[in-house]
Amino acid sequence: MNITVWCENYKQMREGRVKEAYPIGMGETIAAFLEKAGNKTTVVLQNEGDDGQQLTDEILESTDVLFWWGHCYHGKVSDELVKKIVRRVWKGMGIVFLHSAHLSKPFRALVGGPCTLKWREVAEKERLWFVEPNHQIFEGLEGEYLEIPHEEMYGEPFGIPQPDRLLAIGWFQGGEVFRSIAFFKRYYGKVIYFQPGHETYPVYQDPKIQKLLTNIAEFVKPDKWLTEIDCPNVQPLEPIEKSN
Amino acid sequence: MNITVWCENYKQMREGRVKEAYPIGMGETIAAFLEKAGNKTTVVLQNEGDDGQQLTDEILESTDVLFWWGHCYHGKVSDELVKKIVRRVWKGMGIVFLHSAHLSKPFRALVGGPCTLKWREVAEKERLWFVEPNHQIFEGLEGEYLEIPHEEMYGEPFGIPQPDRLLAIGWFQGGEVFRSIAFFKRYYGKVIYFQPGHETYPVYQDPKIQKLLTNIAEFVKPDKWLTEIDCPNVQPLEPIEKSN
Amino acid sequence: MNITVWCENYKQMREGRVKEAYPIGMGETIAAFLEKAGNKTTVVLQNEGDDGQQLTDEILESTDVLFWWGHCYHGKVSDELVKKIVRRVWKGMGIVFLHSAHLSKPFRALVGGPCTLKWREVAEKERLWFVEPNHQIFEGLEGEYLEIPHEEMYGEPFGIPQPDRLLAIGWFQGGEVFRSIAFFKRYYGKVIYFQPGHETYPVYQDPKIQKLLTNIAEFVKPDKWLTEIDCPNVQPLEPIEKSN
Amino acid sequence: MNITVWCENYKQMREGRVKEAYPIGMGETIAAFLEKAGNKTTVVLQNEGDDGQQLTDEILESTDVLFWWGHCYHGKVSDELVKKIVRRVWKGMGIVFLHSAHLSKPFRALVGGPCTLKWREVAEKERLWFVEPNHQIFEGLEGEYLEIPHEEMYGEPFGIPQPDRLLAIGWFQGGEVFRSIAFFKRYYGKVIYFQPGHETYPVYQDPKIQKLLTNIAEFVKPDKWLTEIDCPNVQPLEPIEKSN
Repeated sequence: MNITVWCENYKQMREGRVKEAYPIGMGETIAAFLEKAGNKTTVVLQNEGDDGQQLTDEILESTDVLFWWGHCYHGKVSDELVKKIVRRVWKGMGIVFLHSAHLSKPFRALVGGPCTLKWREVAEKERLWFVEPNHQIFEGLEGEYLEIPHEEMYGEPFGIPQPDRLLAIGWFQGGEVFRSIAFFKRYYGKVIYFQPGHETYPVYQDPKIQKLLTNIAEFVKPDKWLTEIDCPNVQPLEPIEKSN
Repeated sequence: MNITVWCENYKQMREGRVKEAYPIGMGETIAAFLEKAGNKTTVVLQNEGDDGQQLTDEILESTDVLFWWGHCYHGKVSDELVKKIVRRVWKGMGIVFLHSAHLSKPFRALVGGPCTLKWREVAEKERLWFVEPNHQIFEGLEGEYLEIPHEEMYGEPFGIPQPDRLLAIGWFQGGEVFRSIAFFKRYYGKVIYFQPGHETYPVYQDPKIQKLLTNIAEFVKPDKWLTEIDCPNVQPLEPIEKSN
Repeated sequence: MNITVWCENYKQMREGRVKEAYPIGMGETIAAFLEKAGNKTTVVLQNEGDDGQQLTDEILESTDVLFWWGHCYHGKVSDELVKKIVRRVWKGMGIVFLHSAHLSKPFRALVGGPCTLKWREVAEKERLWFVEPNHQIFEGLEGEYLEIPHEEMYGEPFGIPQPDRLLAIGWFQGGEVFRSIAFFKRYYGKVIYFQPGHETYPVYQDPKIQKLLTNIAEFVKPDKWLTEIDCPNVQPLEPIEKSN
Repeated sequence: MNITVWCENYKQMREGRVKEAYPIGMGETIAAFLEKAGNKTTVVLQNEGDDGQQLTDEILESTDVLFWWGHCYHGKVSDELVKKIVRRVWKGMGIVFLHSAHLSKPFRALVGGPCTLKWREVAEKERLWFVEPNHQIFEGLEGEYLEIPHEEMYGEPFGIPQPDRLLAIGWFQGGEVFRSIAFFKRYYGKVIYFQPGHETYPVYQDPKIQKLLTNIAEFVKPDKWLTEIDCPNVQPLEPIEKSN
């Protein structure tokens, strides 16, 4: 499976605490464990001033599953690229929105909600509870939750439509809860929102989180592609007796 | 309740078969029966070349429920207006997409799917079956279905996300079926898709259809408005003991 | 609206900590605030050895909404009574399962799951987050959560089917989360599961909880009754040409 | 995968039109094509007077997927067997309810609704439309619908809870529609209702229907088994500071 990892790359992503958490880069880290699991990966970094031109048609058209991490540059992504991504999801591409991608243009375009939430950054503990413990995304993970020692808090109400399936709920030390893993089907394509992953904590370095994301990629990968997004004019299958 | 009826007004809407079906105009007809039921209504016609400028901020900001019928001019509606409509739905405004509005920009933006379908125009019969017969939108309608003597066929697969509730399924004489009334919740706002209403047949002149649409307006009207679409930064509700 | 409150009445419900929390009795307390809100209420206590005979056909047949609190005597409720309750829900009666009623026979019969969960009784704090803050059951409650100072912990995974709507999620001091208010539609009837309410804490004495439960009664009350639960044999609506 | 096929075997199932449609028996026919597809199958026939004793604990405990066709003898199935089946589904067993099994005890116990419907037997045509065309159960089937030349009509309203996914809608020649393939998740187990299959028409002899049912078996097969159906008492994961 071809996985493309879109990752924002603002200046602070390459220094200080983020560099400590992700020495080779966050997008590169995600790609590395997905590659190790047997996938072919491409990393697309969104640098300052980029509108998404690096996610070329060629890359997009060969992508089976797209991971999307963004934060400061949501508004810079061109509407034209958003439309292309959305159409490819409708045709079957899986897509995984990570953490602050809740406000990204493609996520809002796909789910149709504001995707607003409460937040706080005090390095608190999160515990991610599996609501549907036998779902394939939790395969190989022991127990019924994952602990994340330090995470940014995201709290309800989360302005998403009711998901097709709610898969995990996050408990935060400071007193909030969050629908942390939610699945939405959008015609042929599968969409996952995945809350953990603030850039200053090494969340995606955790082997359990890596296993979970690898399973998620497997879950959202397309089984069948839609060939055309169109409204065909068709002949009657049964005789129409003219009445009047 | 303030209801605004958006109705496309391409040239043929004022002559020939459409004029026969709706002598005073389709938008005006819809507004008239909603007005008669006790609502305050405003009609906004989209003429050739209009991008939606007639749906002014003033009208939109005082609208509780928006009905939307469009067909040829979907692409002309400005993206800016679409954003305003979507945001007002998130805040609580009800919206009812009629018939060919399945491909309208606001509907696609709110549900996140392509909303494609099959179609055929041979004046065939449709029978609209109530799947959830005790839902408030069917109040006062006897029986378990409505018959529409002549309608354009819309057929599955319909490229919508799974609705929050499927309320009615259409049977077509020519052999197809369709999820004809579907409800989607989008944050504070309620969204209904309503399939009947091809412009060349007097569907909205039928008292039963008028009762159904009047009930639908009542169902989607806002009970509470969201004041701000934002992501507040909040303090912990519980003490955060620093661990490390 | 006629509300019947079914409440278990094992010996310890009338002494010690439960008596402190509910001097007049728990069922009587629930009935009192619902009565004060304008409803007509009947309390049915299940004493030791009772199989439900006090919930007579006469009471059940005049009940619009049934509240159900049970714990030790679930197994004593007769299967015949369960069938009657379930059928009345299918016909339109609203039903609210309180706290330990998650394992009651009628709840399991209506939702079709084991309804198992994790639990712990250490008088910890719960915070009940409103996931759908504009839902009518939260009308008149300020803020986005309720705090319950002492509650028995109920934790995920909760063995219920995916609810028709998830309305609130509980945060527990000890580290768990729970789908605390969940709505299920069962043909004409509305079913709510409501987690707070361990008998040794005065949860149902809290005016906010009382407001919430009063709103819930209003939400689940029947709008239309089904007359018959049957499978009618019907004539074709369209001519059937014999093919072969 | 071990598949058990439960099939009612009232006297008329072995003579006349049913014998013409299924010379070796209906249950045996279903088992034969599932066996051919690589599964290990067991047929359990329910003869007059049987209460289900042939579906022994040994067979049930080794069943991965259970197909259930019943009609006249629903009431004869013992409540004890129903409980065992339901518990095994909760633990992971897949179950497929065929046609008249809509009124079977295990189906009603699992979905929690009356499962009533309209019906008519005039050998009319049904067309089964795929609502979610890229779902794995439609893999290998060309087109967007299946035609069934002669079928008993089952019509809406169908007294089921809203399914977790609606997969197909049936169109009937006589004017009705039906939610013909519906999926329900019940804790670890997957439940499918499948409407086609009246005993006097050779529906299950159609290679396309056989392919569809073979895919369905694959879809509902358990991926993970629940070991215990219980409510564990657990220790706090976080310190509980005593407040008062």
